Amino acid sequence: MILPVEFYRRKIAQIQEAMERESLDGLLLLDAVNVSYAVGFHHIPSERPLAAFIPRVGEPALFVPLLEQENAGDTWVGDIRTYFEYPGEEHPVVWMVREAGVRRLGIDTLTVDVYELLPPVRITALVERMRWIKDPEELALIEQAAHYADYCLEMVRDHAPAIIRDGGTELDILKFCVGEAAARLRREVGERFQLRGASVVGTVHSGARAALPHGSPLARQPQRGEPMIAGIGANVGGYHAESGATFIIGEPVGDQMRCLEAAAACNDAAVMALRAGNTGAQVNAAALNVLRDYGLEPAIRHRIGHGMGLQGHESPWLAPGDSTLLAPGMVFSNEPGIYRPGIDGYRTINSMIVTDGEARVPSRFLAQHPPEKRILDL
Amino acid sequence: MILPVEFYRRKIAQIQEAMERESLDGLLLLDAVNVSYAVGFHHIPSERPLAAFIPRVGEPALFVPLLEQENAGDTWVGDIRTYFEYPGEEHPVVWMVREAGVRRLGIDTLTVDVYELLPPVRITALVERMRWIKDPEELALIEQAAHYADYCLEMVRDHAPAIIRDGGTELDILKFCVGEAAARLRREVGERFQLRGASVVGTVHSGARAALPHGSPLARQPQRGEPMIAGIGANVGGYHAESGATFIIGEPVGDQMRCLEAAAACNDAAVMALRAGNTGAQVNAAALNVLRDYGLEPAIRHRIGHGMGLQGHESPWLAPGDSTLLAPGMVFSNEPGIYRPGIDGYRTINSMIVTDGEARVPSRFLAQHPPEKRILDL
Repeated sequence: MILPVEFYRRKIAQIQEAMERESLDGLLLLDAVNVSYAVGFHHIPSERPLAAFIPRVGEPALFVPLLEQENAGDTWVGDIRTYFEYPGEEHPVVWMVREAGVRRLGIDTLTVDVYELLPPVRITALVERMRWIKDPEELALIEQAAHYADYCLEMVRDHAPAIIRDGGTELDILKFCVGEAAARLRREVGERFQLRGASVVGTVHSGARAALPHGSPLARQPQRGEPMIAGIGANVGGYHAESGATFIIGEPVGDQMRCLEAAAACNDAAVMALRAGNTGAQVNAAALNVLRDYGLEPAIRHRIGHGMGLQGHESPWLAPGDSTLLAPGMVFSNEPGIYRPGIDGYRTINSMIVTDGEARVPSRFLAQHPPEKRILDL
Repeated sequence: MILPVEFYRRKIAQIQEAMERESLDGLLLLDAVNVSYAVGFHHIPSERPLAAFIPRVGEPALFVPLLEQENAGDTWVGDIRTYFEYPGEEHPVVWMVREAGVRRLGIDTLTVDVYELLPPVRITALVERMRWIKDPEELALIEQAAHYADYCLEMVRDHAPAIIRDGGTELDILKFCVGEAAARLRREVGERFQLRGASVVGTVHSGARAALPHGSPLARQPQRGEPMIAGIGANVGGYHAESGATFIIGEPVGDQMRCLEAAAACNDAAVMALRAGNTGAQVNAAALNVLRDYGLEPAIRHRIGHGMGLQGHESPWLAPGDSTLLAPGMVFSNEPGIYRPGIDGYRTINSMIVTDGEARVPSRFLAQHPPEKRILDL
């Protein structure tokens, strides 16, 4: 468990209130992240189904494969029920539904093949929606995660020039900087979270390959006059944040500084629009319109951002089609991206929190390092 | 792409033959592993759906989010169609089904919430079943992966004693040995596969925590007289194999050697039973019955094995309830496990391949190191 047991007791009570409103007698959570959120039991999902069961009244239970029995027993949940193995004579979810033993059962997620094996159940996004709004202890972990992602970017700014001068590559920069940030994270919070729920990951890619939104680092030395994108994700106590910057190697050429300015203006527009009552689609439009105003429409490859929490990407989305009304406690990435295939690319990333007033931005790197400070002297 | 384009052309032709038999006009593959298998396009799945579409006659297409356009364009598939973003004004899978434009459409996997947005489609495990039987080039990669997993175990055998003598922990042993094996893998095949499709991962855990089938390594020094489980997975070109051994630290105490012998006998029974025409459930029963004969029934926590290929765990299963008839070219793990909560645990892992005759075992470590050679002198 990452958070104190009071957090999970509060969540169970809130889920039970929501079940009352949705006329459900019980809720089976099969999604590993929902299980972790509701009762604090973390596991790596596999083909063996594992569920938290929450009755409308009373204590939750864990339905687990036998090989997770001892791990499940280490949680605060007293009622642990096991099945032997997957696939088994009957599908484990059929067994779980029988164990739940309630008339109006909700389930968070199911594939069609399993759904067809079951008596009538109702698919409900009740817990996913509850996860949208973070409690203060969740926000505190996200702010910490943003801090380590920022620290990794500082390592890139401080050490990439020397690494490149020494003939180093994208992979060398990434390995050193993520290593430093991960070591600091482990030193400062690692003992509390052991191996689970504390990590720093990222990418560094440069030159024409910066035009790939999902590019991966290579054994390639960034060259003078190229942009170099660093995108970093950090996770503290299972909660995620992101920070990212694009650096110019050596000195800027062509319209590079204008692209960094466009990304900064787009970022600021997203922050301004991130207010309770707006929709995710509105924030996306307000932000991407800035890139369009800069004449960069053809360079747009993705939405402005995504929700973050126990998942690095989670609903709601700052994207076309998302009509969710923003509310205080929601957390989003803010990722202006400019991608010119075969030429270059620019992306910055902040993490943002919706409040009663202006958005709070726990990522500090971009604000502390405006575009002119992102030129790395070789 | 990992394999030559001929492999994927052959797979598309085989899928099209199977579609003919199943009376399908087209097949939409939404599962990332199925996409990788059928057309060789590898991506990390996210909330943004991505599909390979295979018409009954003609060339395949890739339906991808805009930000994967360039990556998809790097494959041999000529027909790349894009949607802007997730969630979008309409669900991307609704768009994909319209793009497919065929009457009798099969889909490999769908969650219920998306299924309900679509016109009638048929869920089919056609490609999953095809993946059961590996072609020679796939088996060659799996044999290579088994070799690197074995090498990691050799590193544990050779270096764990000194690491423990110097005060080192499970994490230190794991880090050093996985590091050595991964470095060798990168050196020997890494350039070919870049970052994707080549890795070594594993766990080392000792003492009473060896009783946790899903235990994770800690900063804990293994002690004289304890068992220490090392379980290693390796991946070459995206294809997985596993090797694992339990070592005795210092000198054996109590019934430790008898447990290692029981695991070896159980392993041998699985190899003997792994013959074309038997079912996965029969192999499981034959193997686990050996542990029962040793009086170890209460220490059984899981089935004897699982399929392996592009996934570390994939169907079919050597487990109760799996009635799949084994056929040459299928690949399985062989994982006798003895777990005594609060006391100790023992697990060994081999990779096995079904042939026309006796099973082939590309893992060599256990055969080369019988139980008496798994005692690590401190």
